[in-house]
This record gives sequence, structure tokens and C-alpha cells, in this order.
Amino acid sequence: MSGSDLTAEEREQGTVFEPRFDAAGLICAVVQDAATGEIVMVAWMNREALDLTLASGTAHFYSRSRASLWKKGETSGNTLAVCEVRVDCDQDALILLVEPTGPACHTGARSCFYRVLESGALRRVQD
Amino acid sequence: MSGSDLTAEEREQGTVFEPRFDAAGLICAVVQDAATGEIVMVAWMNREALDLTLASGTAHFYSRSRASLWKKGETSGNTLAVCEVRVDCDQDALILLVEPTGPACHTGARSCFYRVLESGALRRVQD
Repeated sequence: MSGSDLTAEEREQGTVFEPRFDAAGLICAVVQDAATGEIVMVAWMNREALDLTLASGTAHFYSRSRASLWKKGETSGNTLAVCEVRVDCDQDALILLVEPTGPACHTGARSCFYRVLESGALRRVQD
Repeated sequence: MSGSDLTAEEREQGTVFEPRFDAAGLICAVVQDAATGEIVMVAWMNREALDLTLASGTAHFYSRSRASLWKKGETSGNTLAVCEVRVDCDQDALILLVEPTGPACHTGARSCFYRVLESGALRRVQD
């Protein structure tokens, strides 16, 4: 984790934004549609992806499988305009409230979470 | 990752639930209030926490800081009854739709995400 000077109290209750990146330098970002509340994807950010997101207002992530920075929608055009960023109590997870342009999932689904677990098997609940 | 026999197509489009735990044996679980759609917390699960959650219908997680299995609400009483589990396209993230008993956050807040980032600083938006 980071070499923070914040106390636990300051981290949880204070105004200083000091995201805690994990051992791989990443933080979890949950992407939620600002209009509907639907969770459309979960992705990872390194420091650079977070900084670019905050500077540009468009979501950038870090791909663990490709080990590279990634602007969401760079090839598909399905970008995510970030309306608001929230952080959790211990500052190791973020919510991005977004206005999506097109489907968020690379499969073409509106959300990556298009399947529900029922009796041990997955059932599709969204086109 | 796992030694899966699933093809990428089967993983993304199929009915076989085969969650992908990361190098530390963990998968990200986003907890969303089933009634309101509010994201109340983000936590991690190992295989055991996931199995216990599915078997009991009550959320269990793995604490990275304490390196131990953890039944949410075991000491506080603020448990999470799991109504539905969703999985994302590549099966490396879960949503738990829950009915919370009491506040989800250990600070007493309804959600861990009680602060918003504004102009580089955090502002509390929820009691």
C-alpha cells in the first residue's frame, strides 16, 4: 500500500483524497450509469488511468490482461463520460457515475453483468 | 488465473459459472442494495467465501488486511442477505444484490461510498 501520513480516522472521515492502490498498483472502479443506477462494468485503474480520467472527464482504465493503459471506447467509440467519482471508507475502491455512449460491454451488452447465477448455472437476463 | 477448459466464447456467453479468481485467489464483489440500487460496498471473496455465501444466502468475504475469511455482520449484526448474484462477461467480478440489515459500512454509514470527489477534495454526501 502507500506510505501515507493519514491516520485511519483521517482516511475514513477526512477530505483528503488519497486512493489506496493495491500491491499491483491498481484500484477497483465500479462503473454505474448515472441515470439508471445500473452497474455497467467493473474495471481497474492505476494512478495514470485515474489521473487521465479526472483530467479528461472520460474513463480510462488499466487492463490487467494486456498490462496497459486503456481509454474505454478508444476503438469501439463506446466511451464513458464521468459525472461523479465516489470513494469508499478506506479509499481502496471507487465508483464512477457515468453517462455511457453506447453499450459498456465489449460483447455489445448494455452492461457486462448480463447473467445471473441460478442453481449453479448462469442465465442470461439482458440482451 | 484458473486452469479452465472454457473457451473465451463459452466463458462470456455460456451457462457454466467458473469465476476467475486473481493471482491472490480473490474476486471482486460489488454489493448493491436490491431495493434501491445503491452500491453499499465493494469487497473481495476467495473460493471459500463465495461457497459459504452461496450455501448460506448471507454474504461472506475475505479480508485482505486481516488475511482471513469474514462473515459480514458477524460482530455488528449488520448482515447482508443475498437475493441474487450476477457475474460479468469474463467472470472476474460479481454483483451481490442484497437486503441489508442495518448500515453496510463499519463507520455506521448506509453505504461505504459516502464521499464524493470535488475539485480534488472529498465532500461528504451521506450521513
